[in-house]
Parts: sequence; C-alpha cells; structure tokens
Amino acid sequence: MPFRLEMKVRDYECDLQGIVNNSVYSNYLEHARHEFLHAQNIDFAQLAAEQIHLVVLRSEIDFKVSLVPGDHFYVEVVPVRLSRLKFAFKQRIFRRQDNKLAIDALVTGVAIDARGRPFLPADIDRVFTAGTV
Amino acid sequence: MPFRLEMKVRDYECDLQGIVNNSVYSNYLEHARHEFLHAQNIDFAQLAAEQIHLVVLRSEIDFKVSLVPGDHFYVEVVPVRLSRLKFAFKQRIFRRQDNKLAIDALVTGVAIDARGRPFLPADIDRVFTAGTV
Amino acid sequence: MPFRLEMKVRDYECDLQGIVNNSVYSNYLEHARHEFLHAQNIDFAQLAAEQIHLVVLRSEIDFKVSLVPGDHFYVEVVPVRLSRLKFAFKQRIFRRQDNKLAIDALVTGVAIDARGRPFLPADIDRVFTAGTV
Amino acid sequence: MPFRLEMKVRDYECDLQGIVNNSVYSNYLEHARHEFLHAQNIDFAQLAAEQIHLVVLRSEIDFKVSLVPGDHFYVEVVPVRLSRLKFAFKQRIFRRQDNKLAIDALVTGVAIDARGRPFLPADIDRVFTAGTV
Repeated sequence: MPFRLEMKVRDYECDLQGIVNNSVYSNYLEHARHEFLHAQNIDFAQLAAEQIHLVVLRSEIDFKVSLVPGDHFYVEVVPVRLSRLKFAFKQRIFRRQDNKLAIDALVTGVAIDARGRPFLPADIDRVFTAGTV
Repeated sequence: MPFRLEMKVRDYECDLQGIVNNSVYSNYLEHARHEFLHAQNIDFAQLAAEQIHLVVLRSEIDFKVSLVPGDHFYVEVVPVRLSRLKFAFKQRIFRRQDNKLAIDALVTGVAIDARGRPFLPADIDRVFTAGTV
Repeated sequence: MPFRLEMKVRDYECDLQGIVNNSVYSNYLEHARHEFLHAQNIDFAQLAAEQIHLVVLRSEIDFKVSLVPGDHFYVEVVPVRLSRLKFAFKQRIFRRQDNKLAIDALVTGVAIDARGRPFLPADIDRVFTAGTV
Repeated sequence: MPFRLEMKVRDYECDLQGIVNNSVYSNYLEHARHEFLHAQNIDFAQLAAEQIHLVVLRSEIDFKVSLVPGDHFYVEVVPVRLSRLKFAFKQRIFRRQDNKLAIDALVTGVAIDARGRPFLPADIDRVFTAGTV
C-alpha cells in the first residue's frame, strides 16, 4: 500500500473562485513528498542545511475535481526511479468523502551537491528502486 | 511579439533552500495569464463574480533555472487553441539579467458556466485562435 | 480549557532564514480561528457565501520563538467580547516539544452584512460573551 | 518624503471573500521593508546568508479598507528608532485610485547575530536614527 498523508483544506488556501487555488496543490504535493521522505529517514531541510538540494525538474498535474473549504483529502505518494540519477513521485490526491480523484501528478527530481552537480545520495538510491511510471 | 509581464522575486517567495519555492512559479504563471487576459479585455475576477469560471485542467512545468532573491524576470504568454472548447497558454519565464530560460510551461484550461458545464465564451473564442503547441 | 488546534510546520512555509515566515503565522491564526468557529457551528465560508463577512479590524502579534521545519505546535483560541459589535480572539501558539510560547496575538473583528454595515449575528453574540482581554 | 513602493493586487492573493487575504498584507509589508532596506544598501537575503538575521518582534496592523483584484496601491515605509537595539517601521498602505488609507502598521524588529544575540549592525544604526512613533 502506498504512503498516504491525510490533510484538510484551510480557508486561506481558497481563492476568489471559492475553491483551492491551483498553486496550493503544489504546496500539498511538496508537503506530502517531504513527509514521505521523512518516513524514509530523509530530511529535506537537513539536506538543504548540508548543501544537498533535492530539486524538481518537471511537474505534470491533472486537475480533476476542485477541493473546497473544509474538504478532507489524502495524498498518495509512490516513488519511481527514472534513470541512474533521476527519480520521480507519482502523486494522487483523493477527496476523503467519496474517494474521488482530485489531482493526478507526476513530479520528477534530481539531487544536486554543493557544487551544483547532480549526484545520487545513497538514501535516494535506496528509496527509489526501479519501477514503471 | 508575445505578451510579456515584467516581475521581480520577493524575499518571502523564497524557501529554506534560498530560492523561489516551486509552487510560487504557479502564482507567477497565473498572474501573468490573468494580466494577459486583462490586456484582451477579459477579467478573471469579474467572470468569477458572474459564475463563469476559467479553470485549469492540466499544467506541465519544466524547471530550468532557479530564481533567487532580487532576480528580475519576465513571463511570456502565448495563447493556443487546442480544440473547440479547450485552450492553452504557452508560458515561459526568463531571467532578466541574461535572458536565460527559467521556466517552460504549458497550462491547459476550459471555461465552465454557472451549471458547471464547459462552454465557449465569445471572448475566449476570439483570443484563442487556432495554433500549434 | 481553551480551544486548541494541533498543527505542524510544513517546509514550504519556511523562508530563506530557514524559519517559518512571519506572514505564515497569520495563516495559522486564521485557520485556528475558523476551526474554533466551526466547533461553535459558525462556518466562515458559508457566511461569506451568504454575504455575511467576518472581517479583521486589527491584529497585534508578538513573535517570541521562531518555529522551524518539522516543529509540532498548537494554537489556543479564546473568544473575548470587546463591545456590542466588536469581538476579539486571544490567540497563542505554543511549540509542542517544550510548550514554549511562540506567538502571542490579539485579533479584533466585526461582522459586516451584505450592505457593508456592521451588525451582530446571533451566533457571534452567543460565542463572544463578556470577558476581559 | 517617505520611501514609497508601488504595487498591484494579484488575483491569487484574494481569498473566498473576494478580497486580499489578511495575511497577504504581511507579505506586502515585508516586501516593502526589504525594498526600503535595499534602497539603503541593506540586503536582507545577503545578511541571512551571513547569519545575521533581522527578525520581527511585534507587528500591529489596523485594517481600514479591503483591497480587491486589480487594485493599485503603494506602501510607505518610515524608519523609527525605538531604543539602542530595537528599531521599527511605520508602514501605511494606500489605495492608488483615491489615496485612501488601507493599512496602518507598526512593525518592530531587532538584529540577531550568528550566536542568536541581539546586536546593532552599523548600517541599521545609520538608517534608524532617533524619531518618534
């Protein structure tokens, strides 16, 4: 079973259309990725302090259903290895009340060392094993 | 020449990595789309007040170069018609100092009426003429 | 015992100083107020849809301790009646690990009807009884 | 004449009430403070990189008029010296169309060195001369 993070819409995340603003889903997805990594003993903030940066190369997001104030939802995170250095997160957000798919996303990343060069931390290698998108 | 919006990074938009947080680019892109639409006499907020919602169906963003505090940049917006009802914005963000491509994005949308059904406002039809992505 | 909401710092809420950005505390405080109101059967978003707006007149925030990535914290909310129409929320944020006071705030508000005039909804009258700040 | 920064409301800064969300004014105020400091050759981000942190101790904000989508406005910044180590910014936001006062704020801060102790950088001493709030 994939990693799952329970969350809830906050009113301030909604825009003048009365729904969660599109850019906020990127916040949700980032937070879920970092919580997923934490669960694997990888601390994004700690890595940044050590000049190791996990950076996003590309994001693809399909917006299926708009979340509204008060909605409970959960974010699923599935790690996928794309190549020797590149990894990705398959992420889906489901509305809690009816398990409807709200967001379907694929976020690709890479690790960068202090000199700005891509490299492969052992922890990333361990978590992102071969798989198919 | 495509529509172009000049902007500048604000410190609060940067995260603990010291660079603009990924989700903030979605804010930049949205703001540039709305300014582009304004320049075409289409007012997103006014439409929302009339229960006409322009909604994003999909976004694809390639992150090329990270913007940092104080960076000046500009966002280009090119309208593209995808089908009878669907339209898209090709959007690119360039760093001002060296015109380097920072963000390359394609954002697809549709207009929804008060009953939640896709439709084609005349203004949208006018602005998004046939083109290739 | 006062209303209390448990929360956790998310990495994207931190700025280039590596700590929670000051403006984010306003988000935390707003979310806690709205959750407090929900617990009293007052729905901010529903009221807004009915053209009844709860608006903030003034906020005073003392920043005592900076929260950092991963910190757990809780927000306390105490309702205070200031006058016939004005009400306030005494709000304090405590860091979970040592119960240290991080934020001490007083947020004053009023209800506005559809014509923009201050008035006193019965629910607000019920929740905000006389008290001292 | 005080320092003045011209800005414009962006749609994504507005919440489900259709007005600029309260916490966003803290963003505006911070950005104007940092631009004011830049104009005085003080770079907030650069200082942070050198482990010198300018931190906010207290903010008081009076919300007078709500800004809405498309509003142009300007932020005035006036430096005030409160004590040997403490300094403040008197900040006011005016709506451009009618010069109406939208926000009246006082933000108090202090500089912290790498060991977390308050101190007085020469640049801060220079900019924040004696004055009355």
